[in-house]
Amino acid sequence: MGSFPNRVVDGRSSTSNGGASVVDKGVDFAQYFCTYAFLYHQKEMLSDRVRMDSYFNAIFQNKHHFHEKTVLDVGTGSGILAIWSAQAGARKVYAVEATKMAEHARALVIANNLQDVVEVIEGSIEDVTLPEKVDVIISEWMGYFLLRESMFDSVICARDRWLKPTGVMYPSHARMWIAPIRSGLGDQKMSDYRSAMDEWYGFVDETKTYYGVDMSVLTKPFSEEQRKYYLQTSMWNNLHPHQVIGTAAVVKDIDCLTATVDDILEVRGSVSSSITLENTRLCGFGGWFDVHFRGSKDDPAQQQIELTTAPSINDSTHWGQQGFPFHPPVRVTEGDNLNISFSMNRSKENHRLMEIEFGCEITQCSGNMVPCFRNKFFIE
Amino acid sequence: MGSFPNRVVDGRSSTSNGGASVVDKGVDFAQYFCTYAFLYHQKEMLSDRVRMDSYFNAIFQNKHHFHEKTVLDVGTGSGILAIWSAQAGARKVYAVEATKMAEHARALVIANNLQDVVEVIEGSIEDVTLPEKVDVIISEWMGYFLLRESMFDSVICARDRWLKPTGVMYPSHARMWIAPIRSGLGDQKMSDYRSAMDEWYGFVDETKTYYGVDMSVLTKPFSEEQRKYYLQTSMWNNLHPHQVIGTAAVVKDIDCLTATVDDILEVRGSVSSSITLENTRLCGFGGWFDVHFRGSKDDPAQQQIELTTAPSINDSTHWGQQGFPFHPPVRVTEGDNLNISFSMNRSKENHRLMEIEFGCEITQCSGNMVPCFRNKFFIE
Repeated sequence: MGSFPNRVVDGRSSTSNGGASVVDKGVDFAQYFCTYAFLYHQKEMLSDRVRMDSYFNAIFQNKHHFHEKTVLDVGTGSGILAIWSAQAGARKVYAVEATKMAEHARALVIANNLQDVVEVIEGSIEDVTLPEKVDVIISEWMGYFLLRESMFDSVICARDRWLKPTGVMYPSHARMWIAPIRSGLGDQKMSDYRSAMDEWYGFVDETKTYYGVDMSVLTKPFSEEQRKYYLQTSMWNNLHPHQVIGTAAVVKDIDCLTATVDDILEVRGSVSSSITLENTRLCGFGGWFDVHFRGSKDDPAQQQIELTTAPSINDSTHWGQQGFPFHPPVRVTEGDNLNISFSMNRSKENHRLMEIEFGCEITQCSGNMVPCFRNKFFIE
Repeated sequence: MGSFPNRVVDGRSSTSNGGASVVDKGVDFAQYFCTYAFLYHQKEMLSDRVRMDSYFNAIFQNKHHFHEKTVLDVGTGSGILAIWSAQAGARKVYAVEATKMAEHARALVIANNLQDVVEVIEGSIEDVTLPEKVDVIISEWMGYFLLRESMFDSVICARDRWLKPTGVMYPSHARMWIAPIRSGLGDQKMSDYRSAMDEWYGFVDETKTYYGVDMSVLTKPFSEEQRKYYLQTSMWNNLHPHQVIGTAAVVKDIDCLTATVDDILEVRGSVSSSITLENTRLCGFGGWFDVHFRGSKDDPAQQQIELTTAPSINDSTHWGQQGFPFHPPVRVTEGDNLNISFSMNRSKENHRLMEIEFGCEITQCSGNMVPCFRNKFFIE
């Protein structure tokens, strides 16, 4: 055998949970939570200036939401948001963390002399019991393209169980965006796919010649596996704004105070975008998100803060953007209009991963309609 | 949040199973079996000429072991060993595979017109029931440094349940080898570790300056995490024979017909090696394995075949060798003698991964004794 985890050359992520249909806690740990038990990973997030500045400003420019209040931090990780909440004057902060990172968070709380305010609780938010309801729920729950990881489910659960009717959510709102892009990555992936298939055909020939076994029956499933890997898996991207060739559109708008799990189980909609660049290539779509800290209607923020992961020259984030390349690219030009149908569902094998379907119809400024194309993608 | 699986830049493998102390089937699938459900991975193994040739020759140069016999292939994967066994004249072959790869194996069997001989059974060998005992158990169960993956446990279970008293094991014997090596990889890893720590100190300063939180209490656990990752995790290597600077020694010898799980739960021993190169650097140890196809005492092979993963100029394998670098390297020269203590146990977090401890004492040909050093490594 010889599976490849300690061969760094192998970038493939395997996400099957062996067909288990319900969420097994151990499996969920093995596939998901374990990542957050690494300080290395925490450091990556704590070094994300866009992420840090927006939460920092949201808290310290809205101290009235924290002063003498009770706060719940869902998935506190290293404890940074809980510590800031305490520094902003919270009376009590419950910092819940499912992984062993809780021990480091506890040490950090003590080292910063906040042990009288911040209580770190190791456990899943779904399981823990708090002695009181809270005024604020703060959490950094966003995954790639907002919903990957499905962690917002846990925030909703926490909100429904522990937030006072007058309470506020940090962040209070979230949006998913898509926009048409140009990129060389899709071409690269296509050529990677083609070489993988060329290699396969050579492999089939050799196996027949040297070992007397005809492997050609596996060509179709192999090509499907490789298609999924190279052509149907979205890519982490750090897009330059110039790569966005049309207007961006919101495909999902979430009010964190009222959204239910049902509201986010599936994201579906039709949006339109007009090309803003002359004579260019539509290579696919980029997807990103932003979240906002506005407090609540009855208890608004004094300073509204936004955290955006949109393509930016200076302010890139560890989330980057998700790239969904098409094959082949389509020539478009300024004024062309795209009617985009979009649907996102959770992967059957792993509820924290997503499957996305894009449909696109191009109405050229000339009036011609370019036959629409459809593509399915996996966010892994 | 934003964990990194679809960021190919992140090569880190996370292996915690969330502290689950017993082996959870779902977790085991998520962490282990799933890898083998990829045809890409099967192709990697099927393209390993050393692996393929040795099994192919073992079977077809010892047809008397297969002709009109019943065979059990444990972990058949794509089904190649089962198909060869049938082509060598087996009356019946049971090909057991735990993953969905079983479906591809079934298709391959039919495409090669062996459906009357080869029966593919999807399930764990521990769970399946065969209608009869078998004459031969064949399996390619070897992981990095032989025992990683702990798959031999399943072969032992199959043998004790299904092999006739007169039966033979393919392979019949296995050995673990270690040898002193010189390599630049250790220096590289040490400098990677140092840069990671330099980065960390900058991170601690910035977090204090910009965000008012003192992270220095996490410096020790972070450095331990990074030490484990960079300095205590064995590395996949494709060693050139010239990198082996002393005599190789066997640390474990396994008779596949009689070995028990207790025999392989822990591997412990002391071996010696003498340096065979003049004035060189002892940078650590290389570990590899070989297996042999000798049949049994009462029913020996006509042609004994060996599969070795030792350093080689022409015959490298996908297993390569495991590298266990030391810091700092030690100057040694021809005639110096190494007394090496070695122990390998299964990781508490994941029974398919290994923890290794090396101790080494150098008696220089001059008679001087170099203070011994100890190092712990993880095979991940």
